[in-house]
Amino acid sequence: MKPAEQRVDSDDNQELHELAQQLRVDAVRAADAAGSGHPTSSMSAAELAAVLMTRHLRYDFARPDHPGNDHFVLSKGHASPLLYAMYRAAGAVDEQELLTFRSNGSRLEGHPTPRLPWVDVATGSLGQGLPVGVGIALAGRHLDQLPYRVWVLSGDSEMAEGSVWEAVEHAAHQGLDNLTLLVDVNRLGQRGPTRFEHDLGAYARRLEAFGWHTVEVDGHDVAAVDAALAEARATTDRPTAVLAATRKGRGVAAVEDREGFHGKPLKDAAAAVEELGGVRSLRVDVQKPPAARVLHAERAGHLALPRFEEGDEVATRTAYGQALEALGSARGDVVALDGEVSDSTKAEFFAKAHPGRFFECYIAEQQLIAAAVGLQTRGYLPYASTFAAFLTRAHDFLRMAAVSRAGICVVGSHAGVSIGQDGPSQMGLEDLAMFRAVHDSTVLYPCDANQTARLIAEMAELKGVRYLRTTRGETPVLYGPDEDFPIGGSKVLRRSDADRATIVAAGLTVHEALRAADALAADGIPVRVIDLYSVKPVDVDTLNDAAGATGCLVTVEDHHPEGGLGDAVADAFADGRPGPRLVRLGVRNMPGSASPEEQLHLAGIDADAIAAAVKLLVERVV
Amino acid sequence: MKPAEQRVDSDDNQELHELAQQLRVDAVRAADAAGSGHPTSSMSAAELAAVLMTRHLRYDFARPDHPGNDHFVLSKGHASPLLYAMYRAAGAVDEQELLTFRSNGSRLEGHPTPRLPWVDVATGSLGQGLPVGVGIALAGRHLDQLPYRVWVLSGDSEMAEGSVWEAVEHAAHQGLDNLTLLVDVNRLGQRGPTRFEHDLGAYARRLEAFGWHTVEVDGHDVAAVDAALAEARATTDRPTAVLAATRKGRGVAAVEDREGFHGKPLKDAAAAVEELGGVRSLRVDVQKPPAARVLHAERAGHLALPRFEEGDEVATRTAYGQALEALGSARGDVVALDGEVSDSTKAEFFAKAHPGRFFECYIAEQQLIAAAVGLQTRGYLPYASTFAAFLTRAHDFLRMAAVSRAGICVVGSHAGVSIGQDGPSQMGLEDLAMFRAVHDSTVLYPCDANQTARLIAEMAELKGVRYLRTTRGETPVLYGPDEDFPIGGSKVLRRSDADRATIVAAGLTVHEALRAADALAADGIPVRVIDLYSVKPVDVDTLNDAAGATGCLVTVEDHHPEGGLGDAVADAFADGRPGPRLVRLGVRNMPGSASPEEQLHLAGIDADAIAAAVKLLVERVV
Repeated sequence: MKPAEQRVDSDDNQELHELAQQLRVDAVRAADAAGSGHPTSSMSAAELAAVLMTRHLRYDFARPDHPGNDHFVLSKGHASPLLYAMYRAAGAVDEQELLTFRSNGSRLEGHPTPRLPWVDVATGSLGQGLPVGVGIALAGRHLDQLPYRVWVLSGDSEMAEGSVWEAVEHAAHQGLDNLTLLVDVNRLGQRGPTRFEHDLGAYARRLEAFGWHTVEVDGHDVAAVDAALAEARATTDRPTAVLAATRKGRGVAAVEDREGFHGKPLKDAAAAVEELGGVRSLRVDVQKPPAARVLHAERAGHLALPRFEEGDEVATRTAYGQALEALGSARGDVVALDGEVSDSTKAEFFAKAHPGRFFECYIAEQQLIAAAVGLQTRGYLPYASTFAAFLTRAHDFLRMAAVSRAGICVVGSHAGVSIGQDGPSQMGLEDLAMFRAVHDSTVLYPCDANQTARLIAEMAELKGVRYLRTTRGETPVLYGPDEDFPIGGSKVLRRSDADRATIVAAGLTVHEALRAADALAADGIPVRVIDLYSVKPVDVDTLNDAAGATGCLVTVEDHHPEGGLGDAVADAFADGRPGPRLVRLGVRNMPGSASPEEQLHLAGIDADAIAAAVKLLVERVV
Repeated sequence: MKPAEQRVDSDDNQELHELAQQLRVDAVRAADAAGSGHPTSSMSAAELAAVLMTRHLRYDFARPDHPGNDHFVLSKGHASPLLYAMYRAAGAVDEQELLTFRSNGSRLEGHPTPRLPWVDVATGSLGQGLPVGVGIALAGRHLDQLPYRVWVLSGDSEMAEGSVWEAVEHAAHQGLDNLTLLVDVNRLGQRGPTRFEHDLGAYARRLEAFGWHTVEVDGHDVAAVDAALAEARATTDRPTAVLAATRKGRGVAAVEDREGFHGKPLKDAAAAVEELGGVRSLRVDVQKPPAARVLHAERAGHLALPRFEEGDEVATRTAYGQALEALGSARGDVVALDGEVSDSTKAEFFAKAHPGRFFECYIAEQQLIAAAVGLQTRGYLPYASTFAAFLTRAHDFLRMAAVSRAGICVVGSHAGVSIGQDGPSQMGLEDLAMFRAVHDSTVLYPCDANQTARLIAEMAELKGVRYLRTTRGETPVLYGPDEDFPIGGSKVLRRSDADRATIVAAGLTVHEALRAADALAADGIPVRVIDLYSVKPVDVDTLNDAAGATGCLVTVEDHHPEGGLGDAVADAFADGRPGPRLVRLGVRNMPGSASPEEQLHLAGIDADAIAAAVKLLVERVV
């Protein structure tokens, strides 16, 4: 056993072997202390980690925000004991903290999250590390213009995820030679052998066909791994994948390369530690990055949002595109990402004005959101847009973005049945539910162009996952360009002391609600109309006032009845006080093709349906 | 121009050229009548369609349920005018109906759906056709054991979707030589050129690396396309991709191979029709399939569900696995699909008992759900399971399954914070919201093993997308094995005339609710406890009874507060009558690692938190 705190001589292969053994020992110890975790998945990649951190990684652990730092993404997040063992070897985490692994309050969670300052993004949902890594590498290449490298360590099982191949394609197409994928091909997935076991060529053929450089190595041979990483660094014009044949549980005969030991601490940890040569305290001086300065700076010029005339007919998606263009002119940190539909979402306004900050992700929505998450790790403010319906493709990435504490803005167009003839495959009818359930999210649904522009600008100031929903068709401009729309607020558009009911709408249905209110008023039934543009957080006070004044509320949304506006309004009254009389209108049918007006009618969310619902409610009182 | 209803001589290449022109003309006419649609995307693939339907497809349009029929999946669903033109040429749709395209009530929707008897699955969300086609091909090869072929026609843009590569991998790994992918490489996506434009080799290299046979052809050369499809049929042991270089808008100079004409009717349709040679009425006698009989039959034997002893501790995931095994023994049409976690979800019970009906999809959740959708088109009843959290990967496939009117059962394990140490990446906290918002879905969340077993069996009898959520840890068996659990029902577990509040729980929180009720009873506060195992549809009557009797309800769920149990309960009261006093408990924090008990405590959904919430509510009354 080496003496305590001995510095590793990074030129000495034998010392790197010792370091790898230390990483294994620490992984075994951490999992043993926790009583759970994935030591065997950590042990297979120990040499990859040891070689990377001693000879190739450039990282200042004292300054995790150093712009010149490399980025290491542990895509196989379940191998967190390996990561934490690396941190201990780097002197970032001490022995005591290592053994808090997976305990309540510890930063060393079962899967890594940015509670640790050295972790860029949370991992643990497999197949996300490379897609996010592509986003970081794009930032390095195109925005920061800094020579840092992105190293992604993934498992072999996760190569089955389609998101990996979206990223493989994107990285090759962009020629991201600052990106290296290390695949820990340990042959065994959770429930048994992977498709290709130790056939490194199977991975190499696929990756090369997509335009990657590949290197196949024995992942336990320190010299071979070192040469492979050096080759990756020396390769230009394309990303490199190092395909490393390894053995799960390497170094402990009871588990090495054997099935049935995934995600379990070793039965006899003490014996395993002894078999691995005992506890060590080797210390690595990770090479620090060169001085670096970010060129983009955070330009903060005057924001000249587009201004729309009241009464004009403008699609909110158009307002989004124009507002984003303006925001991009005012702020150098704003970037936009597209899923090959920027002519529909109207992100094309930004693309034309700021081509250097526009990222085309083609029809690959997982990559779209992952790239946004990657870009925000470098301080950029991404706006990612596609059809609201197709954002469901990226649901897992949105969920994990929240775990990553990522700040991203997402805009979904063509929401609801009001798109008309294209039919249900193109209609976002689940997006509000999806985004509301994302932790700490903000969900906005503007009804007119000026409101959209203001909310697009306000989104920039928020934290977390922010979503704004736009409409395909043109809608009348209701608000002046200087009107404020605070997050968590609402607008009362019709109001009198005689109001007998309240209609709560957002986006497209605001216009139907106004028509219904006018018709009802003509029939002698005055009603209040609330534009609930902030679906989350929701304006509890205004809703309570309306409930108190009018006694009953009708919510109406161009969305399935579950999880959207109606649920948000009902939730506002879940405060222990008696609830108001509520009726909710939403899309309960399976739409086909029809004109936008027909669709609203068939779904029962048009002005007629709203007026009818109000009358039913009001008559019950009478 | 040919005379009306002339039979196409399928041996005559010139007649096939004429047929292709007819398909173009009809696509142009349909879009013109509709005033919207995608004629140019239809025109590029006209020869592919003409050759396929005259010389290779075996399909009885009078008997869409013929077990020997080939299956044609139009993955590029926006090219629906081409599909409907094919139907007209096949005599399945007449001129008059063709021109109803995209109008209200027409079966000819903007994107194809199974409202048409010849459409297996809805398309329009790109990158879904091949994944679903793999499912159909698996049925043909492994279950039906019939020689039908699956033909998938996709666009080039959609090859960027990761789901396509999940399917490419799955098909190759399974050696599905009954599957042919036709890629209409027309070079232009929606907003401009694709990544690879006309570089067929880019696609070929990728597909071959994954183990596919590929053929590159001029997609407008009838003889070449014919030879390619023949080669596909003659290829054994592997699927074939026919990569066809085509020109978007082919045949009309104003739009051919030009940008800016995606998804738009032609400006001068009459001139275009003339340029294409005028309206034709060629009729194709599509070759009928040979007589075929499905071997599996629908075995309907005795169902011997597992029976658990009241008071024993059993994980509901274990009950799922054992119940599914039993269901598989009783019914020959039940199949199971796994995302490489069957040892965790416990689908392994089924896998061991019925290996021929178990499909390992590896870590590729989109393919997992797509394969299930494909299998159900052939009359099988799929149960697809993985971690609840990772089902978010397949959200778009679940959404589209509803549009496809697909009958699938989905089971998500490891729901909620109660999984403990693994942390938030592995916790399903959005799944109830996701599944509730799927059209016509059923959402179940059992709290004990017998209830799980019964609900797994009941799911088989339902329609649409059905979801059941299981728990990782062991929970006490509360119900006897003969108890009934009707869909849309609930169980009142504690009840007295003196009840002062109602706790509504499901799954894991039922046990916390019972503990809270016992503690409250000991404090002199009797409360009702409802096990709301059917989250959708929800038991409105029992909830109303409870509200009437107790005045206030506390909902508690191991899920984010949005879109789940709390919203479902609130919705039950959105009937226009005054609402009860409601308070909802759910996971509002971002969990880290901790023990299951600690997690429940930190999230404020354990017995103590429930009891405290009830006391607050009750005190307000007092």
